Amino acid sequence: MTEQPHRIDTVRPLRANTVTQWDFAADVVVAGYGIAGVCAAIEAARAGAKVLILERTGGWGGAAALAGGFVYLGGGTPLQQALGFDDTPENMAAFLTAALGPGVDEAKIQDYCAGSVEHYNWLVECGVPFKESFWGEPGWEPPHDEGLMYSGGENSAPFLDIAKPAPRGHVPQLADKKIGERSGGYMLMKPLADTVASLDIDVEYDTRIRRLVVDDDDRVVGLLATTYGKPVTVRAARGVVLATGSFAYDTEMIDRYTPRLSGRPGAAIEEHDGIGIRLAQALGAELAHMDASEVAIFGDPQMMARGVLVNGRGQRYVPEDTYPGRIGQATLLQNDNKAFLVIDEPSLEEALATESATPFFRFPPTWVAESVAELETEMGLPEQTLQTTIATYNKHAENGSDPLLGKKAEWVRPISAPLAGFDLRGFTAGFTLGGLRTDLDSRVLHVSGEPIAGLYAAGRCTSGLCAYGYVSGASLGDGSFYGRRAGKAAAAAGTE
Amino acid sequence: MTEQPHRIDTVRPLRANTVTQWDFAADVVVAGYGIAGVCAAIEAARAGAKVLILERTGGWGGAAALAGGFVYLGGGTPLQQALGFDDTPENMAAFLTAALGPGVDEAKIQDYCAGSVEHYNWLVECGVPFKESFWGEPGWEPPHDEGLMYSGGENSAPFLDIAKPAPRGHVPQLADKKIGERSGGYMLMKPLADTVASLDIDVEYDTRIRRLVVDDDDRVVGLLATTYGKPVTVRAARGVVLATGSFAYDTEMIDRYTPRLSGRPGAAIEEHDGIGIRLAQALGAELAHMDASEVAIFGDPQMMARGVLVNGRGQRYVPEDTYPGRIGQATLLQNDNKAFLVIDEPSLEEALATESATPFFRFPPTWVAESVAELETEMGLPEQTLQTTIATYNKHAENGSDPLLGKKAEWVRPISAPLAGFDLRGFTAGFTLGGLRTDLDSRVLHVSGEPIAGLYAAGRCTSGLCAYGYVSGASLGDGSFYGRRAGKAAAAAGTE
Repeated sequence: MTEQPHRIDTVRPLRANTVTQWDFAADVVVAGYGIAGVCAAIEAARAGAKVLILERTGGWGGAAALAGGFVYLGGGTPLQQALGFDDTPENMAAFLTAALGPGVDEAKIQDYCAGSVEHYNWLVECGVPFKESFWGEPGWEPPHDEGLMYSGGENSAPFLDIAKPAPRGHVPQLADKKIGERSGGYMLMKPLADTVASLDIDVEYDTRIRRLVVDDDDRVVGLLATTYGKPVTVRAARGVVLATGSFAYDTEMIDRYTPRLSGRPGAAIEEHDGIGIRLAQALGAELAHMDASEVAIFGDPQMMARGVLVNGRGQRYVPEDTYPGRIGQATLLQNDNKAFLVIDEPSLEEALATESATPFFRFPPTWVAESVAELETEMGLPEQTLQTTIATYNKHAENGSDPLLGKKAEWVRPISAPLAGFDLRGFTAGFTLGGLRTDLDSRVLHVSGEPIAGLYAAGRCTSGLCAYGYVSGASLGDGSFYGRRAGKAAAAAGTE
Repeated sequence: MTEQPHRIDTVRPLRANTVTQWDFAADVVVAGYGIAGVCAAIEAARAGAKVLILERTGGWGGAAALAGGFVYLGGGTPLQQALGFDDTPENMAAFLTAALGPGVDEAKIQDYCAGSVEHYNWLVECGVPFKESFWGEPGWEPPHDEGLMYSGGENSAPFLDIAKPAPRGHVPQLADKKIGERSGGYMLMKPLADTVASLDIDVEYDTRIRRLVVDDDDRVVGLLATTYGKPVTVRAARGVVLATGSFAYDTEMIDRYTPRLSGRPGAAIEEHDGIGIRLAQALGAELAHMDASEVAIFGDPQMMARGVLVNGRGQRYVPEDTYPGRIGQATLLQNDNKAFLVIDEPSLEEALATESATPFFRFPPTWVAESVAELETEMGLPEQTLQTTIATYNKHAENGSDPLLGKKAEWVRPISAPLAGFDLRGFTAGFTLGGLRTDLDSRVLHVSGEPIAGLYAAGRCTSGLCAYGYVSGASLGDGSFYGRRAGKAAAAAGTE
């Protein structure tokens, strides 16, 4: 099989001996200028490496700059301490092991929790601002510029009995935040991009990676990319860092690995086409948890906490006051993507009187009914299904308890007529969590268990910290944390 | 990186130019003497290739010879016709698309259904006996030597409204079958192994594959294996067929790909260590549906159909009269591996009076109670959970209907005291369905989408026909069907 050296329509590696000229060269080449890439570039440059970032779009940011901005940090960060929350790395690890499982990379969880305070300080030193203010209400994000929030169900069943609850969703502060304008993720990326600009780091925009270049020993020594369709060769003397994001927008990969997410990508960008994963797979890279996904549900957490969520059979299935991403996963993956929210008039009014960072999740009820029986019929549920669910809920709510699912007493109250019903069937979207398997130095692992020489990865093209559960801030968290590791390790690779 | 040529502790491919001597040589080398391997060997030999089978254990059979023996076939097989069941390839494809989804390989479903009658005839010509007898009762397998049975919920909700129900579980007949002795799977493998013996096919037992051997163009040209620990090189002039089974017994792969199955392998053999998958991954092979799994539940189908199954919240979640493998999946994957069976005394007695091929699933009730309230308490369920579930079930059962889940009228009857309760929490086991992505000629596909030259695969080391659902007979079905294709394609590869 003779190969055209510069084909760009395959993900097979290109042999270095077919490259006659290098268009660009650096010690460390970072593919992707989102959260993982920016952190890798900073650390590689600070370690003395000449760094080049290749970015497919016309500017920095990636999905991170559009995200809410949660960075999942804990173990006693200065922000946690200032706001009066006790936490330890062990406590954080106990929570994450339970919340992100089953199948978590335990070494990575321990490592991440142990390094979390240092990582917080590093972000602050880079200029990322966190306001000493806590938002304690149910929600997807804080509605103002609060810096800290529960973002994974830490204080809800079943986790509040597994680890001492502590909020760990750290959100960069926007000056003069206006809803709908720039996000917390922008204020995470902006100071980091400014840090890159302050260092001797080159960036090539509008440059899309196509193939890895390997030498005769299968060590990664560069990339073939295209700039406005024109192939360019990029030499990486010490290493390549893949930071190209998830595969949420690659329909073939979705069909092969996580078809339940098919047609509903969310919180991802079109550039998330899995290219980093596929290039590494072509070198024999191991994968992990390719079916795992973050799942958002387009319901208002303030309403959900005060109401009752039932599945397509009229049965409750998740404590309504937990992290809404957990509700999303339970709905899509365990309940056929069918959810109805039932809430009575006083609770609905109370919920609507609260502030929300996601007011677009507040829409009129699908049904208004004078009785549960009427609502049951409107929802198309068999007789005595919703009615018995609500009756049982109400019976225990009289005592302020929820023995079925453990919703906290503060949100438990009997539901009375008139009622509103929200049809949330199909109201989910998400992004992929599976990807390359990496070690604690962000080296991409071969299926043999050994690292692939010259190849590093971080962010959502890796499985990272996540297995099957999710917490908001895990992606910007492990992307930034292991992005830094990738940059350091790649920079050191040439100097061993 | 200089490599020791004959290391056996890595799955990285071995370069052919480091092999100084070939200990064995054939045109087509088949790794694994289970259902996929035996069919590949027969077809390759019949196509004129010199064939060598490498088998890790001391004899033929693999998991197949220990299996119940269902081969999922339809579209109007002679056995279906003789027993009065109408079926067409289109009808079969409609069912399989729904039952095995989401994410099925539609081309493979169409192909398999179109070729199903021919495949049945081929098995019969090889000597596989199917008795013209139908077993119509709920069960995991027929209790006697019946040749045909529903084996995927074809005649249960929701499938009975999606495609015209037809039984497609074809079971080879055992002469003088005694329960606990040889299985239908043995009588599938025995005539096929006899067919191998009648052809000029070599078999090396106690030979375990370790690495693929590739030439300078990355074409697979052989294998490195070990015989009693001693490395042997095996030349494959036309191709290698991987038929090494699932990864159900590789705990690291389970953790990475389908951790919910961790600790509960079932219907698999210890040799199912994923070696075929890993060797191909090292060459850049694409995977599919690695998290998918068959899940058995150790409950008696005759009891389940007559009772009510509830999850750990006391809620019904699956029509109790469906294929028990579907109950197993719903229990493990959607209901936290928690199931209770509730059945009243007359129904239990009736169930126990029926014959079963799995009498070891009949054990005494965990609880006996004089009322649903008492059983609810015994089960540790919150008050009014099981009680309302049974009351609602009974209300509709008075009319012979089950609007919640669509259990067929023949199994719907009100449940009265006294009651028996069976604790089926954690009572599941299963095997993995994910694996290599192959085309209709069983060529192993590279992540680039192109076939890997010289490499073929079939059986449970491939994703095959299956995505997320399962039907009994799918594995022996696609293993035998695409095993044949692999043998044919490999034999033809040297003669293109």
